[in-house]
Amino acid sequence: MVTFADVAEAAVRLSGVANRTPVVTSRRIDAALGLHVELKCENLQRVGAFKFRGAYNALARFDAEQRSRGVVAFSSGNHAQAVALAARLLGIPATIVMPHDAPRSKVAATRGYGATVRPYDRYTEDRAAIAASLAAEQGLTVIPPFDHPDVIAGQGTAALELFADVSALDALVVPLGGGGLLAGSLLAAGALAPRCRVYGVEPAAGNDGQQSLRAGRIVTIEPPQTIADGAQTTQLGTLTFPIIAERVTDIVTVDDAALTAAMRTLAATTKLVVEPTGCLGFAGLESLRETLAGTRVGVILSGGNVDLDVLAGALRP
Amino acid sequence: MVTFADVAEAAVRLSGVANRTPVVTSRRIDAALGLHVELKCENLQRVGAFKFRGAYNALARFDAEQRSRGVVAFSSGNHAQAVALAARLLGIPATIVMPHDAPRSKVAATRGYGATVRPYDRYTEDRAAIAASLAAEQGLTVIPPFDHPDVIAGQGTAALELFADVSALDALVVPLGGGGLLAGSLLAAGALAPRCRVYGVEPAAGNDGQQSLRAGRIVTIEPPQTIADGAQTTQLGTLTFPIIAERVTDIVTVDDAALTAAMRTLAATTKLVVEPTGCLGFAGLESLRETLAGTRVGVILSGGNVDLDVLAGALRP
Repeated sequence: MVTFADVAEAAVRLSGVANRTPVVTSRRIDAALGLHVELKCENLQRVGAFKFRGAYNALARFDAEQRSRGVVAFSSGNHAQAVALAARLLGIPATIVMPHDAPRSKVAATRGYGATVRPYDRYTEDRAAIAASLAAEQGLTVIPPFDHPDVIAGQGTAALELFADVSALDALVVPLGGGGLLAGSLLAAGALAPRCRVYGVEPAAGNDGQQSLRAGRIVTIEPPQTIADGAQTTQLGTLTFPIIAERVTDIVTVDDAALTAAMRTLAATTKLVVEPTGCLGFAGLESLRETLAGTRVGVILSGGNVDLDVLAGALRP
Repeated sequence: MVTFADVAEAAVRLSGVANRTPVVTSRRIDAALGLHVELKCENLQRVGAFKFRGAYNALARFDAEQRSRGVVAFSSGNHAQAVALAARLLGIPATIVMPHDAPRSKVAATRGYGATVRPYDRYTEDRAAIAASLAAEQGLTVIPPFDHPDVIAGQGTAALELFADVSALDALVVPLGGGGLLAGSLLAAGALAPRCRVYGVEPAAGNDGQQSLRAGRIVTIEPPQTIADGAQTTQLGTLTFPIIAERVTDIVTVDDAALTAAMRTLAATTKLVVEPTGCLGFAGLESLRETLAGTRVGVILSGGNVDLDVLAGALRP
């Protein structure tokens, strides 16, 4: 079981290694939404996304045998870069199983950190099975993108920092894919801001989290088609789901058009480049604005790794 | 005469009003340039540019008579927004004389802050004369975009914060238009980091600063054609020039292609939207990298207000 103590320990482990990312506000955004919004800029995190937190926390806990044999990870992008960089920093060999259609910028960045990339077809192959067989053959340790106690604990440090850096938040709105960031955020909120409502936001095309919450069990869907490539997960994890089910206030969804509009608004107003998945929390404010009217709302901008032609397309509607 | 004491007083006046903007680093940029770069994010300042510092500092010093009559300013963009917002915060009526071809985003933002906009043709009309006649007719106080002691002092607070927030810098690289930011930065460096080399960077098409430094007097040029719309100045000021001439290490230039490339690099690598003028300092590192090899270099990213179609164009080379 993962607890807040694990998040707090991860924060110590990450201190001086991960960026303590800034919190940005915009009076224009506040006026447009009728909320006060505090944007936690994980797009300015190392590797351009919060995923560095969980990956480094997990790899830093490897024993000598694990370190010498190496790590294998599967990821739609940012977790790949995160494991690759964390492995390089810790001197651990890394193999990354990545979808063949992952954004070019993410594949290039992963290779740039010195990792070996093993491509797969996300519509026909099972990435977890590929990673498992590499692990069995070569003695590698698998670090999954979200369903791992050390990954969840590491991801929770973003919310921990946000609660420490801004005054009392009434709500926290978090992108949701496999649930690592949301579960970690819920642990941080539970200890540091127990009255703070916490919302997950996922792509409308891939609302397995919302379905799971309603059903009270993990619902599995087909791989969703959405520009939020970091949230193309088919189900929550066996570790993340119980935390989310017990603690989350609600899960809402946004469509791709709302994500594109959010990218444009964030670039124009806050001067920040945020990837589609990273916009989920901000885009979700539109459907929460009546519920949260007049309150102080934290939003995690979870990443900024977007191909420049995708960003350019979003800027020209 | 403006001194560091004025900059320090401005910092007190701006505390809690201006954003204390974050400093961002990128190991990828450091590796590419062979430097350690600390990016001071004035694109995340209120109104999206450092200009808010000088404008607010100047308007906050108005007496009751000046406050009730109002302010008039002339500007190619960010100073306009800065004066408009500072005036609104302080309850002062504002009229802004803006070029008819200023970026649409800047004109809209200035109007959005409640100011009256008076357009002019920058190739045939004299904006200073228009402002002077409005001042004479209506008793308004003119706040020029750079050549004013309170403006220079306010702009110096960005460098003051940077010196306070990061360890000893070997060099500071600053965008140069009329010289308000550079002069203020030089005052801050002189007091806080006397061994720090300070460079100004201006558009190659408008290198009046470099010419003035070489000639030892203020050289006036034709309005330059450059995408760095915030640096389309024709001469340094009578207050900024002596400070720059006495203290600056050197002035270098960059062309528009380098500014476009810098916008792209900063968006892709640091996840920051920076306007062309705001990229001057970063783009200038290319010609300074041999001189500064291996050193710690502060760079002011001076603003982020760029029309989204211009940004989109820069992202698709």
